[in-house]
Amino acid sequence: MAIKKVNLAEKFRLLDEYWSPKIVGELNDSYVKLAKFKGEFVWHKHAAEDELFLVIKGHLLINLRDRQIHLDAGEFTIIPRGIEHLPVAEEEAHVLLLEPKTTLNTGDVVNARTVRDLPRI
Amino acid sequence: MAIKKVNLAEKFRLLDEYWSPKIVGELNDSYVKLAKFKGEFVWHKHAAEDELFLVIKGHLLINLRDRQIHLDAGEFTIIPRGIEHLPVAEEEAHVLLLEPKTTLNTGDVVNARTVRDLPRI
Repeated sequence: MAIKKVNLAEKFRLLDEYWSPKIVGELNDSYVKLAKFKGEFVWHKHAAEDELFLVIKGHLLINLRDRQIHLDAGEFTIIPRGIEHLPVAEEEAHVLLLEPKTTLNTGDVVNARTVRDLPRI
Repeated sequence: MAIKKVNLAEKFRLLDEYWSPKIVGELNDSYVKLAKFKGEFVWHKHAAEDELFLVIKGHLLINLRDRQIHLDAGEFTIIPRGIEHLPVAEEEAHVLLLEPKTTLNTGDVVNARTVRDLPRI
């Protein structure tokens, strides 16, 4: 595995599609992914994977069934496995995700927004 | 596990010791840690753990045996298992670390800078 430096801003400039994470790093059993979010995603959960959302730019709302988590740039949260969540970004948000390699973006829901075989950028 | 929001700047204000990572999150088999670096650490490697360094503030130099990686805020690198590295920060740098729960900060070296039973903040 080549050791390289990843500049987040440069990588985000390569993303042109919302809700479509791209892999920018891998370590141990996990991928580091970047995604641009805008609008409302879908309610879903991951049966066996905890998922970290770190906001790099903008504002991200994560709806849980019983409350909401508001994240600004420089803030993260970890959604534990099994917890239903619905990410919403009123304006474009840039988000770093960290999750096991097995994680599907839509979790237990498979629909038009499901992305398999994520590209590396 | 309670779901909470972590504000990186707030957490960094709680750190008062260099090279002493504190746990700010856990997911899957890993911890998210924050540390302030200043000066030179020690050459070490981790036999079985890849380690991510994301610079939040300042500048971090990671010496490898054959080259150097310079990281500014908003940049990360992943040091694969088995690779010797020596982090150096000429001025204070704020760094987010991601590594398996089993990782010891000084890797295969145990000395005065080794920190066990990392506190959570």
